[in-house]
Amino acid sequence: MTTQQLHEQILQKKSFLCVGIDPDLDKMPAHLLETEDPIFEFNKAIIDATHDLTVGYKPNTAFFEAYGIKGWMSLQKTINYINENYPDIFTIADAKRGDIGNTSSMYAKAFFEDLNFDSVTVAPYMGKDSVEPFLAFENKHTIMLALTSNEGAFDFQTLNVDGKELYKQVLETSKKWKNSENLMYVVGATKAEYFTEIRKIVPDSFLLVPGIGAQGGSLSEVCKYGMNDKVGLLVNSARAIIYASKGTDFAEKAREEALKVQQEMESIISLQFQV
Amino acid sequence: MTTQQLHEQILQKKSFLCVGIDPDLDKMPAHLLETEDPIFEFNKAIIDATHDLTVGYKPNTAFFEAYGIKGWMSLQKTINYINENYPDIFTIADAKRGDIGNTSSMYAKAFFEDLNFDSVTVAPYMGKDSVEPFLAFENKHTIMLALTSNEGAFDFQTLNVDGKELYKQVLETSKKWKNSENLMYVVGATKAEYFTEIRKIVPDSFLLVPGIGAQGGSLSEVCKYGMNDKVGLLVNSARAIIYASKGTDFAEKAREEALKVQQEMESIISLQFQV
Repeated sequence: MTTQQLHEQILQKKSFLCVGIDPDLDKMPAHLLETEDPIFEFNKAIIDATHDLTVGYKPNTAFFEAYGIKGWMSLQKTINYINENYPDIFTIADAKRGDIGNTSSMYAKAFFEDLNFDSVTVAPYMGKDSVEPFLAFENKHTIMLALTSNEGAFDFQTLNVDGKELYKQVLETSKKWKNSENLMYVVGATKAEYFTEIRKIVPDSFLLVPGIGAQGGSLSEVCKYGMNDKVGLLVNSARAIIYASKGTDFAEKAREEALKVQQEMESIISLQFQV
Repeated sequence: MTTQQLHEQILQKKSFLCVGIDPDLDKMPAHLLETEDPIFEFNKAIIDATHDLTVGYKPNTAFFEAYGIKGWMSLQKTINYINENYPDIFTIADAKRGDIGNTSSMYAKAFFEDLNFDSVTVAPYMGKDSVEPFLAFENKHTIMLALTSNEGAFDFQTLNVDGKELYKQVLETSKKWKNSENLMYVVGATKAEYFTEIRKIVPDSFLLVPGIGAQGGSLSEVCKYGMNDKVGLLVNSARAIIYASKGTDFAEKAREEALKVQQEMESIISLQFQV
């Protein structure tokens, strides 16, 4: 999917919601546990119930890997299901990968070719040659950690590096990398006041924003400071939507929660973009 | 495996070699490609040929993930094979993971419980709460990136943060984390001159040292500056050993290359430790 197509999807659906898919057997409705592949059945039901309200799905690879081969099979079935049934949805492998060049090439192959995700999240610590192998893929997107939503973000990301916080240095440096137009960035919703500064450095880039919902970030604050003239945001919510109910009505309740977020987004988009 | 047991293995085998397992179908002997699971057959042959010369194996998860479910199955078979046949070997999942707390817990579960590795590599960018879930596992080890062997290491890791390079800040800060005695660190062999400074901060920690061999690092330089009074090093070599030959003699040639490194290590250990 191209960036332009993603922009269009957002205006068409009046939503910049991304639903995080973090399947956890301990949090799933009991009746699903008796099926052959509870993780896939859960994901499929959530996807079918929310696909018209969201522009993206973000499976978190950790929650699949924790279940070994069975988990990896569920991940493959999940991404295939989305690609086959809802090809207009932007897919994110939330994998936080990154290694020396030849290894990053293999990760890129895993997520962009084997699994056919539109994008993958990566960590910046190892620098240019750990990220450029991902950027080499046409119409695929590499979403690099800039400022994350967790408490540990303040351990290193906000340290002062030559008069400028590390996350700003990461943003600025990455703009010089080859095919940097394929970069997007992770910026946590719990740090809305930082968006103004971030938009000065990357005015046009898409920002993937976790931390709405369970982690406590505010949607209106994020939009106030982080939106650009094409929206430019993908706001992720996982637990608050997918675990809205542990009963047989889990998909229905997930839709209700997603709808609440989408309606809030619709009113913001309508106000800002007269659509 | 405890740190003490790893120290003992090193003195017993007179080796602190770790063989990196980066299976790449394009680099494997042709006759293996006709088997049902070429990746596992390749790994098994390498392991059988080198297990007495090495104290560790480090499968690189990217090289398995690139082959999808089949690759993940080969990873599981490989780690099971090592654990069943060579239980004294220290195993490292080279995965470079790290995410918010509940996600890192799932990664820890994947590598420490489901796959039963002794250790896993992690990235520091997301800070304390992204690493502590790994540290909570008893007799498991978390190997955090400090100063890597690639060119991109100079993009962020060596930037000056309040008068001190970022990688030093990472080392110092991590010492304050809960269960930090379960930490080891990645320090690239291509930066041997940095080891003196690093040893001032983490005198007792094990350092996992990639970059010997294909990446050009020098073993004697690394030992000169990086060794502590219990050796304290795991020196990784992957390509130079496992791809020493593309013929039917690949395992034999891998053994020859591993033996060269082990003998160099033996002379260093004998000199320093009178064993």
